Amino acid sequence: MTGSPSMIELIEKKKRGEAHDGAELRWLCEGYLAGEIPDYQVAAWLMAVRWRGMTAAETLALTEALVASGATLEWSADRPVVDKHSTGGVGDKTSIALVPLLAAAGLLFVKMSGRGLGFTGGTIDKLESIPRFQVDIPLERLRKQVDRIGCALVGQNRDLVPADGALYALRDVTGTIDSLPLIASSVMSKKLAGGAGAIVLDVKFGTGAFMTSEEEARELALAMIEIGRGAGRRVGAVLSPMHEPLGRAVGNALEVREAIELLQGRGPDDLKELTLLLGAHLMVLAGAADELGAARATLERTIDSGAAAERLALLVEAQGGDPAIVSYPERLPAAPHLDVVHAPRDGWVQRVDARMVAEAALVLGAGRRRKGEQVDPRTGVRVLARGGDQVGEGEPVAEIHAATEAAARQAADVVERAFQWSSIAVLPPSILHTAIGPSEE
Amino acid sequence: MTGSPSMIELIEKKKRGEAHDGAELRWLCEGYLAGEIPDYQVAAWLMAVRWRGMTAAETLALTEALVASGATLEWSADRPVVDKHSTGGVGDKTSIALVPLLAAAGLLFVKMSGRGLGFTGGTIDKLESIPRFQVDIPLERLRKQVDRIGCALVGQNRDLVPADGALYALRDVTGTIDSLPLIASSVMSKKLAGGAGAIVLDVKFGTGAFMTSEEEARELALAMIEIGRGAGRRVGAVLSPMHEPLGRAVGNALEVREAIELLQGRGPDDLKELTLLLGAHLMVLAGAADELGAARATLERTIDSGAAAERLALLVEAQGGDPAIVSYPERLPAAPHLDVVHAPRDGWVQRVDARMVAEAALVLGAGRRRKGEQVDPRTGVRVLARGGDQVGEGEPVAEIHAATEAAARQAADVVERAFQWSSIAVLPPSILHTAIGPSEE
Repeated sequence: MTGSPSMIELIEKKKRGEAHDGAELRWLCEGYLAGEIPDYQVAAWLMAVRWRGMTAAETLALTEALVASGATLEWSADRPVVDKHSTGGVGDKTSIALVPLLAAAGLLFVKMSGRGLGFTGGTIDKLESIPRFQVDIPLERLRKQVDRIGCALVGQNRDLVPADGALYALRDVTGTIDSLPLIASSVMSKKLAGGAGAIVLDVKFGTGAFMTSEEEARELALAMIEIGRGAGRRVGAVLSPMHEPLGRAVGNALEVREAIELLQGRGPDDLKELTLLLGAHLMVLAGAADELGAARATLERTIDSGAAAERLALLVEAQGGDPAIVSYPERLPAAPHLDVVHAPRDGWVQRVDARMVAEAALVLGAGRRRKGEQVDPRTGVRVLARGGDQVGEGEPVAEIHAATEAAARQAADVVERAFQWSSIAVLPPSILHTAIGPSEE
Repeated sequence: MTGSPSMIELIEKKKRGEAHDGAELRWLCEGYLAGEIPDYQVAAWLMAVRWRGMTAAETLALTEALVASGATLEWSADRPVVDKHSTGGVGDKTSIALVPLLAAAGLLFVKMSGRGLGFTGGTIDKLESIPRFQVDIPLERLRKQVDRIGCALVGQNRDLVPADGALYALRDVTGTIDSLPLIASSVMSKKLAGGAGAIVLDVKFGTGAFMTSEEEARELALAMIEIGRGAGRRVGAVLSPMHEPLGRAVGNALEVREAIELLQGRGPDDLKELTLLLGAHLMVLAGAADELGAARATLERTIDSGAAAERLALLVEAQGGDPAIVSYPERLPAAPHLDVVHAPRDGWVQRVDARMVAEAALVLGAGRRRKGEQVDPRTGVRVLARGGDQVGEGEPVAEIHAATEAAARQAADVVERAFQWSSIAVLPPSILHTAIGPSEE
């Protein structure tokens, strides 16, 4: 067993709760990526970081060291460049709507996303439910697409922040994912390397999110905002509750369809509300609007004029997919079995548990339990009744889109348990979002 | 990057500060030894243990899991079997005197030791300064020797606690040495596997020791005593100050010579005091004496009769060395260059810094900076004046035994700085030892 003596010094320093400087963190990222510092030393250091934390300055320095480990992108200066990150929630298809919407409103928006792990598919999995849609676009072609239509929805570029990829894989198997400075620097390094000047963060909290409390979500949001500002970007955040699924659809093609409906002026209220809020923040952060109300009005006009949906069709076409799915979403792949879950009684829906709905989607093959597993683009759940809704016995409350009858039955059992009932009227769950960022400047 | 999902669960449990059970710790030790759990997961777990600690029951369970990873020894039941561990200090040659002394007093004492790393040689390095002395004795031959003379001074048997060896090597390069439960379980696993019924622990504190404060030393001693008792052994501990070197000699052959002198009724007071104290505790713990005073009187008679020195000669002979070194220590290898350090002024010695003397011994080649390095058996320092001594300008205060004139000059510089002087009379440093263990039962 051998290791780098300098790495032992860094481990000891972090064990004592001291802060690293930028040179140390650059050395660590470069050395690990080059294979000069062994996994086990980095693993011990990661756990010491999980234990002792990092100062704001140190978290910024780590982010910059991650960025410096790879390439960075720059975009033409004639339009404001924006980006967005969500910490992930059940039924979150906002990126698919937001990217063409903001591009249609005159901004430049290249969104790089990952695949999902755990309950439901990631944005990339959702997009791949569009037949022939390509998410790996060579950089030169990507530049041309962005010059032409101002937007793209692609996978994470492998030339950006390679040290983050290496560290994340190690964190994943060493119990060191749940460290605030490590999460914040990992997210922000990708945003900084992507070249956006204005960034909005959607930090979810609740039973269907990674963070269960609003307080944790706020802390993470503030840490990421501080990194962004330290790196000279304009960053805002929205804290959004994730107790029920976002929108009605959970599952890849079902979610794409719901995003399309949103850009056509339809779609569920909660999804529309969050999408417009994130978009309005980006407009203000990017200097494309003076205040949130005006920004929101612009975005609503962009939807109503059909320009947003049209921009999505251009995006799908540019990335190899069939643009007709925007006008004819029934061209998206559909599951062969449709089951309906009925209300077992008269009453009010108290809550539809987001995590249980996600578990049902996983049973249907819409998510993956292990890296590398295939997801079924066709399957998922549509939640028809939401918290606060009054329903009568036997009314449909959810649809199950399944590959087989057996899977449908199994998922229906889980969905039934996701519904909590009340004999007296209840208020719908809050969809109030707290914004941090622009207003504080 | 892959790893064991069960190991992730253990890491998460320790991160939350929860205690492992025996089954989990046995699984971890076996899995790591078998190469089924990767280094990086164990490294993260070790840092989580360094952070969260372990309960007393958990530390005992870890010790037992380490013991269960390999063979254990048993000895003939006709004599009490004793063992001793020291946390290591500068000039500590007590084992070389204590083992034949206790054997001559009727106990069975097989001491397994390690090589030194850091400042000075370990007991094995010291013994190897005796020409042809063998420290690796096959188990069958060791049993015959012990049946015949009741004692042995050998290297750590590789069949015992192999999981401890593997974990220690990983701790060494991941900043996880300094964890109390990991230290306590590592030490005690070797003692338990060695088969002793009575064990005395010499836990050092001070500038020349691993633990600098008496409080830390006490905590470690109590943790080890608790493990021993939990495993059904009788364990006591002595907390001994290590501000100045123990005895006068620091260096391998020089220390063997001082241990011989001790068994001949000579030797420095502090060394004699500690050796008799540890020996008396072992006699009482083993039931070979009723109380410490009587035990000490027995040991002094064993020295005065010549039986202890004779037993050392038998031990040296049994292990292939020249027994005549006991009567003629000048047969031990000697360094070609002898330099003397003189007092720079009239006054009192305030203190002789143990760590600086050890550093001088390292300069002379008596210790090793890296694993696998050779040590020079001939070289070292003899400290002639101690804290509290009054000396006149120009009087000799230390001898430098060196391989070359250049090394002698370099070491003399370091030794000069080890001496702290006072213009007014000072008291000698305390050699008072605190005993914990037998008296508390």
